[in-house]
Amino acid sequence: MDRPGHIFQRLLLIALLMVGLAGCQVFTPASPSQELMGTGDLGLIIERATGSVLVINTSGHNVLGRVEGLGDLSHASVVYSRDGRYGYVFGRDGGLTKVDLLTRTVADRVIQSGNSIGGAISQDGRFVAVSNYEPGGVKVFDSETLELVMDIPATYTGAEGKTVQSKTVGLVDAPGNRFVFSLFDAGEIWTLDMSAPEPAVRRFDAGDAPYDALITPDGRHYIAGLFGEDGLSMLDLWNPEQGVTEILPDYGKGEQKLPVYKMPHLEGWAIADGRAFFPAVGRHQVLAAKMDDWSLVDRIPVQGQPVFVMASPDNRQIWVSFAHPKNDVVQVIDSQSRKIIRTLEPGEAVLHMEFTPRGEEVWVSARDSNRVTVYSTRTLEPVATLDAEKPSGIFFTTRAHALGL
Amino acid sequence: MDRPGHIFQRLLLIALLMVGLAGCQVFTPASPSQELMGTGDLGLIIERATGSVLVINTSGHNVLGRVEGLGDLSHASVVYSRDGRYGYVFGRDGGLTKVDLLTRTVADRVIQSGNSIGGAISQDGRFVAVSNYEPGGVKVFDSETLELVMDIPATYTGAEGKTVQSKTVGLVDAPGNRFVFSLFDAGEIWTLDMSAPEPAVRRFDAGDAPYDALITPDGRHYIAGLFGEDGLSMLDLWNPEQGVTEILPDYGKGEQKLPVYKMPHLEGWAIADGRAFFPAVGRHQVLAAKMDDWSLVDRIPVQGQPVFVMASPDNRQIWVSFAHPKNDVVQVIDSQSRKIIRTLEPGEAVLHMEFTPRGEEVWVSARDSNRVTVYSTRTLEPVATLDAEKPSGIFFTTRAHALGL
Repeated sequence: MDRPGHIFQRLLLIALLMVGLAGCQVFTPASPSQELMGTGDLGLIIERATGSVLVINTSGHNVLGRVEGLGDLSHASVVYSRDGRYGYVFGRDGGLTKVDLLTRTVADRVIQSGNSIGGAISQDGRFVAVSNYEPGGVKVFDSETLELVMDIPATYTGAEGKTVQSKTVGLVDAPGNRFVFSLFDAGEIWTLDMSAPEPAVRRFDAGDAPYDALITPDGRHYIAGLFGEDGLSMLDLWNPEQGVTEILPDYGKGEQKLPVYKMPHLEGWAIADGRAFFPAVGRHQVLAAKMDDWSLVDRIPVQGQPVFVMASPDNRQIWVSFAHPKNDVVQVIDSQSRKIIRTLEPGEAVLHMEFTPRGEEVWVSARDSNRVTVYSTRTLEPVATLDAEKPSGIFFTTRAHALGL
Repeated sequence: MDRPGHIFQRLLLIALLMVGLAGCQVFTPASPSQELMGTGDLGLIIERATGSVLVINTSGHNVLGRVEGLGDLSHASVVYSRDGRYGYVFGRDGGLTKVDLLTRTVADRVIQSGNSIGGAISQDGRFVAVSNYEPGGVKVFDSETLELVMDIPATYTGAEGKTVQSKTVGLVDAPGNRFVFSLFDAGEIWTLDMSAPEPAVRRFDAGDAPYDALITPDGRHYIAGLFGEDGLSMLDLWNPEQGVTEILPDYGKGEQKLPVYKMPHLEGWAIADGRAFFPAVGRHQVLAAKMDDWSLVDRIPVQGQPVFVMASPDNRQIWVSFAHPKNDVVQVIDSQSRKIIRTLEPGEAVLHMEFTPRGEEVWVSARDSNRVTVYSTRTLEPVATLDAEKPSGIFFTTRAHALGL
């Protein structure tokens, strides 16, 4: 055997060995997006102006990649598959996009309405529901395929006796594989039970024009904010036969209200230590109420009109963001003393905050500074900053494991 | 250039291309365990007799693989890295094993003492601490490398004025990157702050012979059960200057006690809805206490001596397992009515239960039936069974994101 032939054989052997060793990997470039990794410390940051999302890692404080082509992401939110691999991004334009955080690609995308306002994933992870303004109603999709499973038009009898569709808001998941949402135009709260072979709707009369809602972390109390009247509508899902009750009847009332630049998000209420902390409407105050009888226990003065009022996972701190024009500041309240312990300046137009799951850090987006700042909750000092294009919402994969998020 | 030389060059190019394409993957065989997947729905089941663990998936109710060679796994427990990829398994023989759930291999393993009793991972995920019986004390390891970072001998002045090491128990993580543990022989509770450049220990006098402990889900109250006296020792970590206080002074007391086959696990206490549900000592009762003043509000009769008393994530149900000889039964209590709503028979020697993160299902291990049964919390009927070799503890990756687990 001549020498070149010998080398040929040896090289062929090496090449075959490499194919064997590399297996199916050989045809896929080993880019960072094929890397084996856990999904527990990942998250998405919405870049509203560019219709893109950043895939980030909270352990390394770094951006893993950008996924583009998600449409209009103003007021966008995200829920996660139960394995933490896929984020379902609800866009304002009715787009529902399934993002693969591991490959950093769009896994699937449907335009499911003309105008949507958020969504939820069922307790068992099988269904993704979207809340629509235009044409109204709720649509439910298979989380695996994004195929339409159910269309709930959310109809009611309108002004002239006609059957019309209502805008839906405040859509959340609840225990028992249920969805709960409010009908803005009809003034109702509906539950949708996805566990039965024939999913069943139950309707409850609520207050006038619910505009947003929250569910408590244990999935028991669903609370809707009202645009048309003072107070809030609450449904106890442990005792639905009691119907909707009114709580905090003075919420929203008051003389000499400040201009309300933004209706407070109800997802931005903090439930901590048997107390609810939430933004006063049109006032520079954070309110604290006892959750057993909803009596107001404190009014904490803050520097502007609060938007998000969020408790750290250990309930020790309450972080508050603000409405325009005082929205370049975040204030931190000690939940025990109920005093402000720090005023931070993360940048211009602070839009959202997200705590790491065990609360050692919090990520804060400043839209007009194109920046996300990570703070230590212990020192209240920044530990990292990341560049982002007009960042708004920040959503970590641990939401996959929480009720009502 | 001659032909063989040309071929040589081409083959070299192909070989180099393959190395380039396959990247570092080239030396690792592409088995199913190289599959890209989220880690949010994974978990480990301890197989105590065979020193192995099963890697399972809660979405598919299936076993992904078995990892062997973990030593003595009686009384073993698991904590997770913040990305959910690695489980740290604390064996009884002092072994600390880092298991990679994605590749299903032992990533690293150290024998760090003669006899250990559990451990914890710090809030920031950087440190893994292990609680030792033999020779006593606590050892802290780098979670990445398993290198020893700190050795806390946990010494005290013994009977004859000698400095001796104490067995340590009830080791948990707490907010502020702290560990908290109890000294069985010294009757003390220690906190270890890992956030400072020089980690600092604080000592607190506690009751006689703490044998186990828990921390409340918000990481505020550390509660140790006592072997040497009635009552429990509680440390409020928000107000450590107040020192350890005694709660439930009658806990453990009583005439005509039943034989205690097993001291109740304090990790098996349920904190739900501002109430603590926990096993009575030596009685066929689950006790319920208010958490603000620790007054006893109910004694719920059950069929045997309870061991684990666990609340579903929505706080709606309390699941109870039992000590020998009535340990082939699990009872489910409605937390609102505090009545038993179902008695289940998952198999012989039920050892552990673990809820899926949003609580739609619960996994129950029956050691002597070599079986794990998955129940729906809605129907209380089994939805799947899995074969396992003498299964004991079940630990899902969502523990990565909870304080004190």
